[in-house]
Amino acid sequence: MATYSIGVDLGGTNLRAAAVDASGRMLDKVEGRTNFTEGREAVLGDMVAAIETLRALHGAAGLAGVGVSAPGFIRIRDGFITNCNHLPYLENFPIQDEIIRRLGAPVILENNANAAALGEKWFGAGREVDDLVLLTLGTGIGGGIICGGRVLRGYVGMAGELGHITVVPGGNPCGCGNRGCLERYASATAVSAMARLLQLGDELSAEDVHDLALTDSPAGEKAREIWRIVGESLGAALATLVNTFNFPLYLLSGGMLPAWHFFAPAMMHTLERRSFTYRATRDETRIAPALLDNEAGLYGAAYLAWGEGR
Amino acid sequence: MATYSIGVDLGGTNLRAAAVDASGRMLDKVEGRTNFTEGREAVLGDMVAAIETLRALHGAAGLAGVGVSAPGFIRIRDGFITNCNHLPYLENFPIQDEIIRRLGAPVILENNANAAALGEKWFGAGREVDDLVLLTLGTGIGGGIICGGRVLRGYVGMAGELGHITVVPGGNPCGCGNRGCLERYASATAVSAMARLLQLGDELSAEDVHDLALTDSPAGEKAREIWRIVGESLGAALATLVNTFNFPLYLLSGGMLPAWHFFAPAMMHTLERRSFTYRATRDETRIAPALLDNEAGLYGAAYLAWGEGR
Repeated sequence: MATYSIGVDLGGTNLRAAAVDASGRMLDKVEGRTNFTEGREAVLGDMVAAIETLRALHGAAGLAGVGVSAPGFIRIRDGFITNCNHLPYLENFPIQDEIIRRLGAPVILENNANAAALGEKWFGAGREVDDLVLLTLGTGIGGGIICGGRVLRGYVGMAGELGHITVVPGGNPCGCGNRGCLERYASATAVSAMARLLQLGDELSAEDVHDLALTDSPAGEKAREIWRIVGESLGAALATLVNTFNFPLYLLSGGMLPAWHFFAPAMMHTLERRSFTYRATRDETRIAPALLDNEAGLYGAAYLAWGEGR
Repeated sequence: MATYSIGVDLGGTNLRAAAVDASGRMLDKVEGRTNFTEGREAVLGDMVAAIETLRALHGAAGLAGVGVSAPGFIRIRDGFITNCNHLPYLENFPIQDEIIRRLGAPVILENNANAAALGEKWFGAGREVDDLVLLTLGTGIGGGIICGGRVLRGYVGMAGELGHITVVPGGNPCGCGNRGCLERYASATAVSAMARLLQLGDELSAEDVHDLALTDSPAGEKAREIWRIVGESLGAALATLVNTFNFPLYLLSGGMLPAWHFFAPAMMHTLERRSFTYRATRDETRIAPALLDNEAGLYGAAYLAWGEGR
């Protein structure tokens, strides 16, 4: 009888894997910085080794399956990644089948933001609801939509690309071909770029811009203006999402959350102004920080491994 | 045993009701222009009378239930309309309970765009898919989202307000409080307003602007420019929808469809440019006209009356 599953999170810099029991208790975790530049074979080898370590610890007989959370556009049906800036050598390669072949265990591949949304729904900030939207604010912006407790995947598994909601139609060009994507105004990359434009520094991280915003200085004023722009952009995207879904919960996660008190006022003000649905359902619509931090994808992937029918 | 249901469509100018069998065959239809200015009691009386006429024709014993498609923001759980520009006297009134009381039959209330989307899914252009989005281009713009064969309602039933997707952030103010809503650029009202601004005429309908666009003249050129703006706005909204849902089908319906060949090129060009997901799933993503015209809501309401579990 299955007693645990394994979730794997193939992140931009780290590879992590965890054994999680059916109630969402994490039994064991292995993690390490993977040398992604070594190519496909190295990454696949590391993933399989991490899974095998956990399987050896907890027994092959009790393993329900393996869920893999990966970045990029994923064709769920086909089990491969079609587009990923960070791991180009994994594109259009049958990664799911290859891991299955090496492990001899059921494996399911999922986009990392979808996996994180699933993790938050089952074990995090979304436990009380069946429907939620998660925006992951990182280097880029990902989105995960949970509808009736399940990931809303779309036809080939590419739903939830919410970082590419247009918030400024004629705005900054985005790698996706669009202009003025949310990702260009509210990601860590966007915060750094704005800091550069405002001559605050060439190499400032979102964390640096947060620290700067704490200071009582002209630079602090500029940094707070950056967070206001982040908030307005998030508010505009949330207005579209609230009007579209009327879900009870919208979560934000990622490394920018410490700046919540700087961007949230503009975000809520913009949402309030732009969305009639929000104004009409204020008591039933919550915008909140996610809870599981960077472990959400790991939990979600592990959950997925049990199969959605459990 | 139930052999038919009754769908009612409470439109902006007409009230229609139809008896529909379980296979989607329309057995009978009653329709008339209702004097909406006479107030709540007149509208309720007309609705109940139309339903009773059909029930008398087909027998009370065989009636599965009644579905009512109505405009405005509807709180499905509570069975009432919270906001409706056309029928203010129906706001916050227990319309569903009141019809149930008068008829002694099960009644379910649904937003008209949601009902139309359901009609198209079961009996129209969406029969081959389980997931679709419908945009109804009329005086305003409504939206209906079908996910797994069911209406995506959201927490209180207000999901799918797609006419208020922002397509021009600093753009024309909208009654909803937002600026630059899709509805302000791609509804019949918006087409008339643009015709006025371009000094083509003060009272031109969308149909007039369509006819004008057919002419080889400076006015015809301006009219074609209006349809280009309509197309670009629809393309921007569709990009957000495709990025969000990755559904196989997006339908457009309403009185503006005859102008399809004028607005579709700009719409498809904008969608193509703005949505990576569309470019990556072109063969699996269809943008198409709806099929059931103004009867979609009637079919959808009748379908709904059978209960979603059938």
